[in-house]
Amino acid sequence: MRREDAVLERIAAIVGRRTIPPGEVHVGDDAAVLAPIVGETLVSTDVAVLGVHLDPELFPLEDLGYKAVASAVSDLAAMGGRPRAAVVAVSSPPGTDLEELHRGIADAAAMTNCPIVGGDLTRARDVSVAVTVIGETPGRGSVLRSGAQPGDTILVTGPLGRSSAGLRRRRGGAPLDDALVVAHRRPWPRLAEGIAARHAEVNAMMDLSDGLGLDLHRLANASRVGFVLTHLPIADGATEDEALGGGEDYELVMTTKDPARLQAIFFSRGLRAPIEIGLVVKDVTTRTWRGEPLDALGWQHEL
Amino acid sequence: MRREDAVLERIAAIVGRRTIPPGEVHVGDDAAVLAPIVGETLVSTDVAVLGVHLDPELFPLEDLGYKAVASAVSDLAAMGGRPRAAVVAVSSPPGTDLEELHRGIADAAAMTNCPIVGGDLTRARDVSVAVTVIGETPGRGSVLRSGAQPGDTILVTGPLGRSSAGLRRRRGGAPLDDALVVAHRRPWPRLAEGIAARHAEVNAMMDLSDGLGLDLHRLANASRVGFVLTHLPIADGATEDEALGGGEDYELVMTTKDPARLQAIFFSRGLRAPIEIGLVVKDVTTRTWRGEPLDALGWQHEL
Repeated sequence: MRREDAVLERIAAIVGRRTIPPGEVHVGDDAAVLAPIVGETLVSTDVAVLGVHLDPELFPLEDLGYKAVASAVSDLAAMGGRPRAAVVAVSSPPGTDLEELHRGIADAAAMTNCPIVGGDLTRARDVSVAVTVIGETPGRGSVLRSGAQPGDTILVTGPLGRSSAGLRRRRGGAPLDDALVVAHRRPWPRLAEGIAARHAEVNAMMDLSDGLGLDLHRLANASRVGFVLTHLPIADGATEDEALGGGEDYELVMTTKDPARLQAIFFSRGLRAPIEIGLVVKDVTTRTWRGEPLDALGWQHEL
Repeated sequence: MRREDAVLERIAAIVGRRTIPPGEVHVGDDAAVLAPIVGETLVSTDVAVLGVHLDPELFPLEDLGYKAVASAVSDLAAMGGRPRAAVVAVSSPPGTDLEELHRGIADAAAMTNCPIVGGDLTRARDVSVAVTVIGETPGRGSVLRSGAQPGDTILVTGPLGRSSAGLRRRRGGAPLDDALVVAHRRPWPRLAEGIAARHAEVNAMMDLSDGLGLDLHRLANASRVGFVLTHLPIADGATEDEALGGGEDYELVMTTKDPARLQAIFFSRGLRAPIEIGLVVKDVTTRTWRGEPLDALGWQHEL
């Protein structure tokens, strides 16, 4: 056995499931085979690059794998879906600790109940992890970001800015197990909340990957509406700037005509109460925070 | 609109379909939404890196995009499936012609009838394209590489070595439109042949991405069998070494108890007759070509 096949076997032992559902084939064939998917199929892909998405001076390599999987799974949560499978394409220079990287991948896969069913490995100068997740939306349809209606209440699933605050604290010397640093290293996709919101028939939903100050504009653009932001839930230890402009919180933002029903469904499922933050308005140019115009804030790549 | 969102809009115009099936959502939301998938779902991922998988001195950038999509779709062909959707994660340094790269991606997507439903863009030192394809196997089950039985006839869907010969010719100065150079630049996934082979109930199948001399060992390893290779179909203009050890031909290799039935089904569908190349044997250590032991030949990454 040559080098590549040998490495693939070791990695399969790290990310592979011991128990595979009947009729499914995961790693080892040309493609993975999944049992039939219920309802709509969801697909999303995310790539994370060492030095761009993760500073190797501050964080262990396994965090790159964890965060790549978690951010992709969060896209399924944002549609109200549940994960069925993920595939992972890893590029890396010689000498990269691929086993450590895949331990982070396996950890996120286990936390989100999303089996890794295939992958690809290749040589490159950068370490990068491209994750594609497949999900399903049984029952009622997937929730789009384009469905917000004037008069809807806007809510988020939790206080914001934890991830940015954790990054700031780590840069200031906080240990890897500091609570906010952990929030940055180990984001938790809001799968249960997304499914509850779909059952509550919210009009629009998305996950906050680049910060509320940018993502809320994206939701408003897709829905051709405006918004009036009246309340900003700031996480303990975070600043207002971090809550508004900081990315990677992966909380969900939702809009609904019936916030009381949403609250009741979250309560009945034992989920933390969603927090009202504002209203959807008809005029697309109205985008305000505390009555002042809110420009698009947040993080975008320069490409 | 900031830089990343603006680039994404231009790329969506290149790769996006003008007509989207009812109930589907392609680019623009957190995840793509596909209408229900028929039968088993197939998933495969492949990453192609400029300078590793494609020499930028010899080939235009669009070939990287084309080949990344084609090699992933070929994995669906190898299971007897048909494509439903692909997502593409592109990493690149500033200044990369992302529109040219995505024209190659769009070209392969159109040729294989596999819509690009989502993607991700990020900054990196390398130009790399990670493609994940979703396919379906309606009717009879997907064909695995692990099903070969002693006594099976081994067949391939076409003569081998065209891609390697084309690369050699290009290195020697042949133009981009030389027939063998085109075979290297524009591989054609054998989707119709894979579906025909599935309907003919072949026992095992895989695509030849790394060369028959390596891939046949992989099929034999997965099936716990040996093989006796008796005939090697060499493409016009290729050498025996290229036919045996050259990668990226993407022809399919199949094993079946009933080669006459396979030939009849291919004939009835207007497909080129598959070529018999040898036999599957019970002893796993028997791996011969013209009666001599055949070591694993072909291309693997050093990781």
